[in-house]
Amino acid sequence: MPARTLTTPEEYQALVDKYDTWLFDCDGVIWEGDHVIGKAGDTLQYLRQQGKRIFFVTNNATKSRASNKGKFDKMGIDCQVDEIFTSAFASAAYLKSVLNFPADKKVYVIGEKGIEDELDAVGIKHAGGTDPDDNVFIDLMDFSSITSDPDVGAVLCGLDMHMNYKKFAKAFKYLRENEGCLFMATNLDSTFPTHGTVHPGGGATTAPLTCALGRDPLVVGKPEAPMLESIVQTHKLDKSRMIMVGDRLNTDIAFGNKGGIDTLMVLTGIDSRADFEKDGAVAVPTYVVDALGDLSLLAE
Amino acid sequence: MPARTLTTPEEYQALVDKYDTWLFDCDGVIWEGDHVIGKAGDTLQYLRQQGKRIFFVTNNATKSRASNKGKFDKMGIDCQVDEIFTSAFASAAYLKSVLNFPADKKVYVIGEKGIEDELDAVGIKHAGGTDPDDNVFIDLMDFSSITSDPDVGAVLCGLDMHMNYKKFAKAFKYLRENEGCLFMATNLDSTFPTHGTVHPGGGATTAPLTCALGRDPLVVGKPEAPMLESIVQTHKLDKSRMIMVGDRLNTDIAFGNKGGIDTLMVLTGIDSRADFEKDGAVAVPTYVVDALGDLSLLAE
Repeated sequence: MPARTLTTPEEYQALVDKYDTWLFDCDGVIWEGDHVIGKAGDTLQYLRQQGKRIFFVTNNATKSRASNKGKFDKMGIDCQVDEIFTSAFASAAYLKSVLNFPADKKVYVIGEKGIEDELDAVGIKHAGGTDPDDNVFIDLMDFSSITSDPDVGAVLCGLDMHMNYKKFAKAFKYLRENEGCLFMATNLDSTFPTHGTVHPGGGATTAPLTCALGRDPLVVGKPEAPMLESIVQTHKLDKSRMIMVGDRLNTDIAFGNKGGIDTLMVLTGIDSRADFEKDGAVAVPTYVVDALGDLSLLAE
Repeated sequence: MPARTLTTPEEYQALVDKYDTWLFDCDGVIWEGDHVIGKAGDTLQYLRQQGKRIFFVTNNATKSRASNKGKFDKMGIDCQVDEIFTSAFASAAYLKSVLNFPADKKVYVIGEKGIEDELDAVGIKHAGGTDPDDNVFIDLMDFSSITSDPDVGAVLCGLDMHMNYKKFAKAFKYLRENEGCLFMATNLDSTFPTHGTVHPGGGATTAPLTCALGRDPLVVGKPEAPMLESIVQTHKLDKSRMIMVGDRLNTDIAFGNKGGIDTLMVLTGIDSRADFEKDGAVAVPTYVVDALGDLSLLAE
């Protein structure tokens, strides 16, 4: 079905009426760099006044939700910590609520403190991560520290600027030896943008294990379905009344499509109308508006 | 064409007569762990007496050829350093002899000293590798040390137990910014065996860059063709009179096939007759013998 472009107040009103829960990507939708895009803030405020539930969905897994909230505060955008779903929090929530991760098992983390914080928040034990013992270089061919640990029930990888061979060798051992040990990644973003350039992303720091194992991880973040499932499960939501708002086809819109919810694309970010109107488009949104701020005219 | 099984002295003699240059995989062919397999040593000695050229071909890239020779000495197998082609040496030789790597450029190394030694041996400048400045963990989101270097003309990855985010971020920057900068890997072995288990291999420590770049490296080691090309170029050999001897279809035999030379499979290692006789076999050898040592009866 082709995307439906909305331009009139009546169409905006019908959209708002149709969905109770609104999920938002931030970069390219709400803000760009350090400034809010147009009247995006006013639209969010209007949706809140209408009693809508709002969630912010980001693949960032290095910072806790509290740290992420700092950016909203700085931008002057209302936001509660439990409205933020990072791929780290979603991973923890998914392990807890969807997979019922056993209380006597632990998660081996290849990632930064953001992941550990979220596992702590849901009461899941963990190892690796920022543990100084695992943030070292081993000597060439010295595998004396790569020992078994039958209590590891999952390996969770995310962007890790402290990635190292010891962590990968340990994780590889657990995944080979421990029956049912889950191989999981917060997200597989190949790169992430910062300060006008890009650097290797969460996918890059998961790739060594994927290669060694010869199989792919369960991916929680956009565009995969588990992040949506964890939001739905955590807050007991009705998917038929949820909509995902984003600027990128291959992450945001594909995320909505894979998760079985409707999508609203804004043209203030990465992708353009031509990208979803062409043959073989990676994903097609349900609706399109020029900018999130356009809906704010309902508040006037 | 199906593999031809050789069993008689006449067949062995015809084989020996047909090839001037013999390439050998070692593990599973010449030795297993710490012992020589049967009369493999006698066969090698016989081939030398017949004036054959012999090369040993290994994907190991962490040790210099001199270190590798130590294993031959310990096993009592005759061997000269320049008969050993590791994927590290082959990478250096390939850069030098086949690609004519410019003298004013340098290679950024993600790998161990074995690679640096071989680049030194052919007079190619390098950076990264064991440089203490690049064997550190950077702080989260601190990219101050990830700066441009227009003199980097290639990035060469191999098994690196000192792999880290700084190396990958630097290499990624060079590969994006420097026109024509070559992305190269010594080998893509997903794992390597040691002491009865396996650990992440050279492919695993190349994977972060492959993921971030979204493209594959030029691979030098088995089963890819550049290692063979570097042997042929370095020693000015006639490929029609060369044969590759090995025990694994997906590395050794595929290596011969891709390189356009005949192959001899021995059944003393990983793969069995069933593996190449089945439909959809990954590679099929030209000849098969039970063991390399079988040819030694020609010497009796």
